Amino acid sequence: MTRREAILAGAAPLAPLAGQAQTSQTQISQAVTLPRQVEKWGLYEAAFTAPVPGNPFTETSFSAEFRQQNRVLEVGGFHDGDNTWRLRFSPDAEGEWTFTTRSNRAELNGKTGRFVAIPAAGNNHGPVVVNNTWHFAYADGTPYLPFGTTCYAWTHQGETLETQTLGTLRTSRAFNKMRMCVFPKWYTYNRAEPPLYPFERNGTENDYTRLNPKFFQHLETRVGQLRDLGIEADLILFHPYDNWGFAKMPAEADERYLRYVVARLGAYRNVWWSMANEWDLFRNKNLADFDRYFRVVQTSDPYQRMRSIHHSKVMYDHGKPAVTHVSIQDDDFTKTQGWREAFHKPVIYDECKYEGNITQRWGNISAREMTRRFWLAMVEGAYGGHGETYLNPEEVLWWSKGGTLHGESAPRIAFLRHEVLRGAEAGLTPIPNAYYPGAARTGEYYLYFLDYHQPVEQEFTLPEKVKFQADVIDPWKMTITPVAGTHSGKVKLALPGLPFQAVRFRKVA
Amino acid sequence: MTRREAILAGAAPLAPLAGQAQTSQTQISQAVTLPRQVEKWGLYEAAFTAPVPGNPFTETSFSAEFRQQNRVLEVGGFHDGDNTWRLRFSPDAEGEWTFTTRSNRAELNGKTGRFVAIPAAGNNHGPVVVNNTWHFAYADGTPYLPFGTTCYAWTHQGETLETQTLGTLRTSRAFNKMRMCVFPKWYTYNRAEPPLYPFERNGTENDYTRLNPKFFQHLETRVGQLRDLGIEADLILFHPYDNWGFAKMPAEADERYLRYVVARLGAYRNVWWSMANEWDLFRNKNLADFDRYFRVVQTSDPYQRMRSIHHSKVMYDHGKPAVTHVSIQDDDFTKTQGWREAFHKPVIYDECKYEGNITQRWGNISAREMTRRFWLAMVEGAYGGHGETYLNPEEVLWWSKGGTLHGESAPRIAFLRHEVLRGAEAGLTPIPNAYYPGAARTGEYYLYFLDYHQPVEQEFTLPEKVKFQADVIDPWKMTITPVAGTHSGKVKLALPGLPFQAVRFRKVA
Repeated sequence: MTRREAILAGAAPLAPLAGQAQTSQTQISQAVTLPRQVEKWGLYEAAFTAPVPGNPFTETSFSAEFRQQNRVLEVGGFHDGDNTWRLRFSPDAEGEWTFTTRSNRAELNGKTGRFVAIPAAGNNHGPVVVNNTWHFAYADGTPYLPFGTTCYAWTHQGETLETQTLGTLRTSRAFNKMRMCVFPKWYTYNRAEPPLYPFERNGTENDYTRLNPKFFQHLETRVGQLRDLGIEADLILFHPYDNWGFAKMPAEADERYLRYVVARLGAYRNVWWSMANEWDLFRNKNLADFDRYFRVVQTSDPYQRMRSIHHSKVMYDHGKPAVTHVSIQDDDFTKTQGWREAFHKPVIYDECKYEGNITQRWGNISAREMTRRFWLAMVEGAYGGHGETYLNPEEVLWWSKGGTLHGESAPRIAFLRHEVLRGAEAGLTPIPNAYYPGAARTGEYYLYFLDYHQPVEQEFTLPEKVKFQADVIDPWKMTITPVAGTHSGKVKLALPGLPFQAVRFRKVA
Repeated sequence: MTRREAILAGAAPLAPLAGQAQTSQTQISQAVTLPRQVEKWGLYEAAFTAPVPGNPFTETSFSAEFRQQNRVLEVGGFHDGDNTWRLRFSPDAEGEWTFTTRSNRAELNGKTGRFVAIPAAGNNHGPVVVNNTWHFAYADGTPYLPFGTTCYAWTHQGETLETQTLGTLRTSRAFNKMRMCVFPKWYTYNRAEPPLYPFERNGTENDYTRLNPKFFQHLETRVGQLRDLGIEADLILFHPYDNWGFAKMPAEADERYLRYVVARLGAYRNVWWSMANEWDLFRNKNLADFDRYFRVVQTSDPYQRMRSIHHSKVMYDHGKPAVTHVSIQDDDFTKTQGWREAFHKPVIYDECKYEGNITQRWGNISAREMTRRFWLAMVEGAYGGHGETYLNPEEVLWWSKGGTLHGESAPRIAFLRHEVLRGAEAGLTPIPNAYYPGAARTGEYYLYFLDYHQPVEQEFTLPEKVKFQADVIDPWKMTITPVAGTHSGKVKLALPGLPFQAVRFRKVA
């Protein structure tokens, strides 16, 4: 983000650059903890100890300018309890960076620092960004195909269950995105008080002027653990399933909360912002409120992380510029083309019902149907979303509390992600007028899903003069059966005459 | 049909009733074969031998007035080869009937006859008519729920195969309606000359002024055999899959053919008229032609048999008064409510793809999917349609040639028809806003189909103070498992947690 961009994004006008730079080179505060280096897209954190009078959330302002040569980013700081103040920053370029703080308190004002962003290493590919209009990639160019699951309230379940959830995510290998709420959840199968509250709470009363640092420390630990598992945290900032008041706070409390979350969590490279779950079900908010949340997040986030909003029946206008991708609750995948063309943004069916056996129809589709939906989304040029809702005596349903997976779709989703899409990591484009839904990387990779059709032979049209290897894929049995020989142009393949098969063609290397 | 209706329906104005009645009582021709009695809704046939010069199809008119007391119906006669002329009539009321012929030839003019319509017996329930707006019944009030199959060209396959088709229909017990073409068919898997042609044919040239009585004798034998099996013959009068010219005849040949078919076959109580298969695929006909066919059939048919028209992509306006029911090619059953409300007529998904394994996507859905579609149609308050297209070396595919059934859906359709719908014989009304699609006979019978949902328990709402017995139904395994006890009001049932189950409630007798 350039300085101009930072200003446009809502940061206050900056003081003259020269003076600032001078200050940052000459004064290093001694009351701070300042790391010397950080990986590009890593999390740089500067901690300051400063006693301040009054309410630190409302009476003390604290932010910083981070600077690399002529580039300046305005970054919010935050109070982290007691006398602790923190600045977090995630540099997107290697090399030397400096910062200077700004505060209405002398103890926190004009503090400076310097550090070096070293090359990203290991699995650090940077944040996910939109790539090629309808797809995603990490900032280093590594393709990212979202395979999301849903554990709305998993960070409010206590250490044992939360650790189990992380273990399940690690071993299933199916998912690289998690839809999760910041606030605790009150809903069927979710009728417990959370271990921590996001605001100071006295009995049943919240003090919306005082955020609870312990709550957010816990949350960011979990977000960091997801990051380390290669999982994007699609953070749902508001949701209507509330028993405590968080769904109907005063507007200024909403905004203070949003800026605080962005200041604390925005530097985690795996964070996505979802303004709401089922925004149209809030009784005390209207469309203008959600427009405002987009604006607040967009103007306070120096990194411009992914932003979306999820609906129940009334779709938010995903054409609005603040929306980075289309987050859909629907299960008619034939609508994809319309949305792709209308919005020119990636389409994720974040909620297309969940595998399970509960009495609610959104939570009781079969494993085969859940698997089928990931395939239908994929061949339409979109992405599916998983959730699981199997009843158990403890009422620990994955979709909300996490824990373990009881169903049969997750291994099939892992199969699709890791095996089937080899060669299509940069995402698929739907094939126009395909006889069966299919998507391709033109000239390289073609994938058709035959759904309930069961032909014993089928003709496909490939480019002429390019040799392709063909595979017949059984998405449920997780088998990939190569067809003998190579193929070009019009190809007639013998098929097993069974429903729910797929055919893949890949260019011979 | 009253006399006024007969006139409105296009019959020529009648001579004074008194004189006609007198004639019919005093002159019985000796050159005729006249049965003395016929069952109500049976087929009365009077045969006359009369040599006539010239072309009997274009130069001789022949019809009759059938009369019971003050009621007069104008009935077309037809030439049946050599010197034979026939009148067919199906009385819809018991008691004495008389007739008087009219012709431009003295030998065929003024012939009279008298017979008695005796009570219908056995399986003769009369023709099918629309009943209760969205349903059907036989004329005697016996409910009729259409369970149709499709053998487009089965009457052009020769004795062996045609007899086999009839045997299959008898033993499968699944179907009580047959979609079938009058004309032979030229299409994939159908590239043979038929044994008989509908017109006199010299090499590759048809004489459209001379119909071929042998062709129609054969056809009506098959229609009669269907009748005796309790199967309605949904006769497709035109279709575009033509190699002989029948899809592009001159308008006057079209009309002569239609009047001839109506005169010959209209008296078969199991005949329905479908103006066309895929009317929008004809290259040489337009909407006005099909409007005209409806008009010709409507005005020449004394019985007003069921009339419909089938489309490929462009739906005919089923709101037109000549259309008795909505004949649909589609497989989105959620459209049913819109059509029910738009047209206030019964809705039949005559073509919702076929069970099979050929390469065409309309002919390769799985048996489970075909079964599912009959259920989806039923719980939306509509009716499904079957066809089967399994490849075999002889290329005898049921959908066109008949023969035997190779698939697995037909027994499930028979199960739905004979077992599941016991108590719902008069047809089902969709339950508004049902949580899962369901249809009912309010207060008596409730049927829900859970499709890919697999809850382990589910609440249903029944009328209070009425006792119902509940069954869990597996449409594929064809099991009906009664639930212990009786139920009223809000009922929570334990379910097997498997997809594709159904639940039925029936009032305790």
